[in-house]
Formats: sequence, C-alpha cells, structure tokens
Amino acid sequence: MEYPVPIESFRQSEYPIDPQFLKRWSPRAMNGAKIDLPVLMSLFEAARWAPSSSNLQPWNFIYGIRDTPAFDGLFQTLGKGNQAWCVNAGALVLAVSNTQQNGKPNKAHAFDTGSAWMSLALQGSLLNLVVHGMLGFDFIKAHETAALPIGYEPQAMIAIGHPAPVTQLPESYREREKPSDRKKIEEFVFEGKWPG
Amino acid sequence: MEYPVPIESFRQSEYPIDPQFLKRWSPRAMNGAKIDLPVLMSLFEAARWAPSSSNLQPWNFIYGIRDTPAFDGLFQTLGKGNQAWCVNAGALVLAVSNTQQNGKPNKAHAFDTGSAWMSLALQGSLLNLVVHGMLGFDFIKAHETAALPIGYEPQAMIAIGHPAPVTQLPESYREREKPSDRKKIEEFVFEGKWPG
Repeated sequence: MEYPVPIESFRQSEYPIDPQFLKRWSPRAMNGAKIDLPVLMSLFEAARWAPSSSNLQPWNFIYGIRDTPAFDGLFQTLGKGNQAWCVNAGALVLAVSNTQQNGKPNKAHAFDTGSAWMSLALQGSLLNLVVHGMLGFDFIKAHETAALPIGYEPQAMIAIGHPAPVTQLPESYREREKPSDRKKIEEFVFEGKWPG
Repeated sequence: MEYPVPIESFRQSEYPIDPQFLKRWSPRAMNGAKIDLPVLMSLFEAARWAPSSSNLQPWNFIYGIRDTPAFDGLFQTLGKGNQAWCVNAGALVLAVSNTQQNGKPNKAHAFDTGSAWMSLALQGSLLNLVVHGMLGFDFIKAHETAALPIGYEPQAMIAIGHPAPVTQLPESYREREKPSDRKKIEEFVFEGKWPG
C-alpha cells in the first residue's frame, strides 16, 4: 500500500531535487504486520554505505522484529505517547553510536550516525515503508536493555512498519498525520558568515 | 563528466538497495571549476527536507563559491592536507548545528545535522558532483570566520566540485582515490542486544 497522503500536494521545493527527498516523511499509521528480516536488512545495507570521518562507521543498530522478545524489550523503553502508535510497528530499531575510537573521542560520532540513519530512512521510504525516528524513549533504559558497552550512546529509536490508513491511529494522532513543512532555505543557508 | 572510477566494480551490497547508496563516495579529484549557485542550492534543498527531532531543523550551512572572499575564508580554516586538494573545489560549505532550542540543549543536534548532510551528499552524487566531508579543519577558526552565534557548532566542512581525472590530484592522494569499503552488516547490526 502507498502512503494514504498525496505528498506532492503538501510539499514544494524551491530548487529542483530528486523526488525521494520530498516523498520521505515520518508517518505514524502502521498496519501491525511485521517487517521481514531481509527487508530490514536492506535498510541497514543502505545505512552501511554512509560516509564517516576516517571511514570509522561509528553507527550500530539494535533491532527487534514484532512479536519477539527483542521488539518487546525496545518497546518497553518508549514513552507512553510513542507506545500508543508504535504498538503497530513491524520492527523497532535503536540507533547507537560509538563515541570513541581507540580510546579517543570521535567528535563526529553522532553526526556520522545521523548520516547512516538518513540512508536507512530513504531506503525505507523508497520501499514504501513507514520509517519514523524518535527521541521519546528512556535512553538509560535503552542502554541497559540493549546491553550497550561503555562508550556507546543511543541516538534515536526508529519505528518501521507497513503503512495504514490514518484511522489506524489513536484519535489524538490523526490530525498531525501529514508531511511537515520546513524553514525556507534563506533561513539556514548563508554566504560566508552568519547574518547580522 | 562521470566519476573516473567504475564504482560498481568496487562495491558489493549484501542486500538489495537503491543504487545511489553504492554510487556515492568521497572523491578528492576536482577540476577547479566553480559550482553555480542554483546547483549548490539544489544540494541545500535536499538537506532541507531531512527529518529532525520535533522538526527543529538544527542544521545550518555557511557556503563559499570558488573565487569569492567567502570561499577563501573557509579555505583558510582547512588543514594543509585538505588544502592540497580542496584548492580545486568549486565550493566549500561549513555544516553547522544549533545545539539549543529555546535555551535548552537539543540532544539530537549533531545527529539531525548528519541526516541533512547525507541528503546533501546524495543529491550531489546524483548530479555527478564530488561531495566530500571533512573534519580536518580548525573548528575554532571556522566558528570565528563564519561569525557563528554562541550555541552553534561546526560539524563538518564539505568540499563540492566537478569531478576530474585522478591525475588532477597531488601524487600522494592518487592511490586512495577510490570508493572505500565498509564493515559487514553482522559487525554493526544486532538483534535485541549487544553480543557477548
């Protein structure tokens, strides 16, 4: 099933770009079907080829497919608001960064893990899956649940699922089930130096 | 001009993915031609639509097009090693994150700016441009040169240019002018918890 919302009617780009960037958004409505493991692996495969400082690849992913103890463990770390719609996710993924390299801090760990996350999100969107990143989870509990080594930091929780009509969502989430807008380019792009 | 290296011969994916992820890499050889402003804007446009926590969009970009004072200012912040090949860049871009929101820390600022950077890199690769991120620059000098407000942090410098044959590079850079490999998926993807 395609997304229930006709994306193009919401988003306009100021300059021409590949349509994948406008198409990708962060829906919440999912149909409760699990994500097959090879499909999930395709998303990690996309993440795998992201660039990173000195090719250190600081990203790691802890996943759980629906109806498994791994999923349930990650689900328990979510805030109540996110549990309300993630109950229909087909998989949950904790994105984790290695903050160090050979005992020294890697100052690009979060930035580079963000680049891997974006690749994962785009690959999921290209497969017409819901891919929705969240900060609304208990970072300490997630660290413990995923048995992360010292020096590894949760960066985001990611819900992945098959899209569903908006009526699948709790009522309080239905109104915001549409692609969000963005700042204008002139608000975040500057020549040479910060304005003013 | 297309990249001088036949990417597909270097990189193999374990699971099927959109070809853009294997095609994108970080060349250094550029031909010294400038990047036209509308083309650069298309790269920022792709970045614009990245996801972010609460849609805060913490990313900002300070750019300089070749043969302008803005370019020269950014170029002066680069380490000598990067200057050696960035001398042929068509544009330089400083990726900057807003570490705060309404006076409170935004813990996703670097991660989300990384996702915008990945979109920029993919759009550039789709346009057959060289897009190469770097940490090898003076962060304090860059902060000063770009007149960044307090609370804003440089995350990466990005060289953008038109591709050139490897012979355009200083000799010491020629051998590594090829797409890098990656860890295997089993090295960074785990079910439920960290192994061991």
